[in-house]
Amino acid sequence: MTETGKTSDNGYRPQDDGSLRAYLAGLAPVTTLLSGGPADWTVEEVGDGNLNLVFIVRGPAGGVAVKQALPYVRLVGESWPLPLSRAHFEHLALSDHNRLAPGLVPRVLHYDETLALIVMELLQPHIIMRRGMITATRYPAFAEHITTFMAQTLFGTSDLALPADEKKTQIATFCGNHALCKITEDLIFTEPYMIAENNRWTSPQLDDAAKGIREDGPLKVAISELKVKFLSEAQALLHGDLHTGSIMVTESETKVIDPEFAFYGPMGFDVGALIANLLLSYFSQDGHATPNDPREEYKTWVLSQVEACWTGFVQKFLALWDGARAGDAYPAALFANDPDAHRLAQERFMRALLTDTIGFAAAKMIRRILGLAHNIDLEWIEDPHRRAACERRALRLARQMMVERHAIASMGDITGAAAKT
Amino acid sequence: MTETGKTSDNGYRPQDDGSLRAYLAGLAPVTTLLSGGPADWTVEEVGDGNLNLVFIVRGPAGGVAVKQALPYVRLVGESWPLPLSRAHFEHLALSDHNRLAPGLVPRVLHYDETLALIVMELLQPHIIMRRGMITATRYPAFAEHITTFMAQTLFGTSDLALPADEKKTQIATFCGNHALCKITEDLIFTEPYMIAENNRWTSPQLDDAAKGIREDGPLKVAISELKVKFLSEAQALLHGDLHTGSIMVTESETKVIDPEFAFYGPMGFDVGALIANLLLSYFSQDGHATPNDPREEYKTWVLSQVEACWTGFVQKFLALWDGARAGDAYPAALFANDPDAHRLAQERFMRALLTDTIGFAAAKMIRRILGLAHNIDLEWIEDPHRRAACERRALRLARQMMVERHAIASMGDITGAAAKT
Repeated sequence: MTETGKTSDNGYRPQDDGSLRAYLAGLAPVTTLLSGGPADWTVEEVGDGNLNLVFIVRGPAGGVAVKQALPYVRLVGESWPLPLSRAHFEHLALSDHNRLAPGLVPRVLHYDETLALIVMELLQPHIIMRRGMITATRYPAFAEHITTFMAQTLFGTSDLALPADEKKTQIATFCGNHALCKITEDLIFTEPYMIAENNRWTSPQLDDAAKGIREDGPLKVAISELKVKFLSEAQALLHGDLHTGSIMVTESETKVIDPEFAFYGPMGFDVGALIANLLLSYFSQDGHATPNDPREEYKTWVLSQVEACWTGFVQKFLALWDGARAGDAYPAALFANDPDAHRLAQERFMRALLTDTIGFAAAKMIRRILGLAHNIDLEWIEDPHRRAACERRALRLARQMMVERHAIASMGDITGAAAKT
Repeated sequence: MTETGKTSDNGYRPQDDGSLRAYLAGLAPVTTLLSGGPADWTVEEVGDGNLNLVFIVRGPAGGVAVKQALPYVRLVGESWPLPLSRAHFEHLALSDHNRLAPGLVPRVLHYDETLALIVMELLQPHIIMRRGMITATRYPAFAEHITTFMAQTLFGTSDLALPADEKKTQIATFCGNHALCKITEDLIFTEPYMIAENNRWTSPQLDDAAKGIREDGPLKVAISELKVKFLSEAQALLHGDLHTGSIMVTESETKVIDPEFAFYGPMGFDVGALIANLLLSYFSQDGHATPNDPREEYKTWVLSQVEACWTGFVQKFLALWDGARAGDAYPAALFANDPDAHRLAQERFMRALLTDTIGFAAAKMIRRILGLAHNIDLEWIEDPHRRAACERRALRLARQMMVERHAIASMGDITGAAAKT
């Protein structure tokens, strides 16, 4: 393992202000974009995520964001090593996303495999969507954009779009990202359901709820079934961490960032991550409401986005399915002249995907309340009693979603239940 | 592509009597086993399969089987190229099978990557099980052996047994066998349900049945759902072609051969292949029966084997699950102190696997009657009317199995329906 500040044998070195200026000065596309020289630039380390260094570099003419992987989990420290190769997979995924969903992900200016470093366009004045939702900001274009992103990237890397040999080649490539998958496997699908050192929750207020989840047999079966899906079902290239902290927004633009957890997995994991984070925002609103800012209308808007995200995704995904495509699944030779069978196939596919989405969404909700990594939506509610009340409602819905996922027939059932929970 | 009889640039050359003798004479483990010199050996090419050269070499002291991949599909000819790398994957799978199910697969004496050639122990007096069943031979040890093989190999390469990183490495490796997977994808999951040049059936007797299947919407949806599973669900290392032609038997021994279609796929595909071929044997018996050899008792035995294969497999698989294991699925931390949840998890897992098994079994039955490659169980019934009557009953059950696979609660329901079809 490489320690911060040292150069490893293979040339890797975590960047700092000075080394980064010198490095960027050698990259023509970057110096053109920034203008001026290294002395004219400002460099700011802003990584507030869990894993990496992130620098914002601004010059007289423009800015770039530089993301560099560290050889360990930043949130925890050097005791938890993590391979630099995740930058390789993030770069691969960003390339696929730029091709499949142009305009909805940051443009890559430079990638350095040795430094595990990606230089991207600076997204400004975009902010992390989660932060905007904490201040009750609406994003009128968001659902339209994110459903396009999900439909294009998931459909475009599925067996509906890719010939089988090409898809197997892609699956094999992303199998290399197993260390990042393992984080998800442990932190989302296992630890919140057992006593584990990494876990934390609003205590003592939620001690009974956490214990209840650890002793809930049907729930443990359900989360384990979802884990098996995550471990073995290579449906499409997932972003792998598609929460509202991985989405940057303005009123009119949406950009999906940080696909370092990318791998071929079950589509419902991405769609569910998004749905989960909208629902967590919904449940957090009562914790942020004040007499002057009651949040009731905003809560209604958030739930409307849950439904809009699902409905828009389905509509766009099926439109792609109806179009010309090269994939081996559901061959045109069997369905082109049989519209009833085609419709039945699509209905059944989407019903199964809804079930997965609901299950994975529930998993994501529970881990953010009982596991290692929490969301600021809830964390920023200072009064623990008030926070726990929000979290308890979210847990109750999540439990129901996961165990009853096969019986829930529509996303409207979820939002209806959320409003009543 | 390399033509037969020529040496390719990389050293590959299809073997013949003379070249093989010289080659084997250089392999110490082989000469020891055979004894004598090349002039004392007999060499016989016996490949009756669809893809490869197979030589039996006998010496004064013993014999070996030599299997060599050809760069095309033998059944069709050089117009259908097929990569030699399938020998590499067969060798990998044979190694895994020897480790996981010792004694139930042939021992490998030598593997030559360049020649795509495997030298194995000669299995004698074993015969291909399918041939024995055509003459109504019972194999009293078969169910015990094959259920051990399936349980050990499928469990042992699943997420229940393998840590996630190791399993992803294995998945990635076997993704390279995509050309063999493609044969399955096309010949089993697609072509029998459309008009395709490769298809053939007992005509004109089954013309209406073939047309009915091509126009059966729910069936086309079902086969396409199974195809998606085959394309995307990497549950365990499959043999990939586990029919009674890939099993060699004596009264007391069972050996599984020919895993060149091996890859990480849905377990139900292997179990289903076996069940399908037992059912096809069952339906073929009326075509072989004579007044002196009515076959009624043998038919009862065959159906009893269908149930014994499923029941034994389940019992052994669950026993492995109950034991010490290193896999990431269904972690002990969640289930060790919750026997009810453990039992529920196993019940639900096996219910889902039964559904898959029934669906894949149906797919295998249909392809052997309407697709390219047929079974001698049925092909050797000379009278086309009599053969078509057997095939029609098999098709009727297969159609029901596939479309109703989610509703069928036990293998006994299948054998009961078979007896009544």
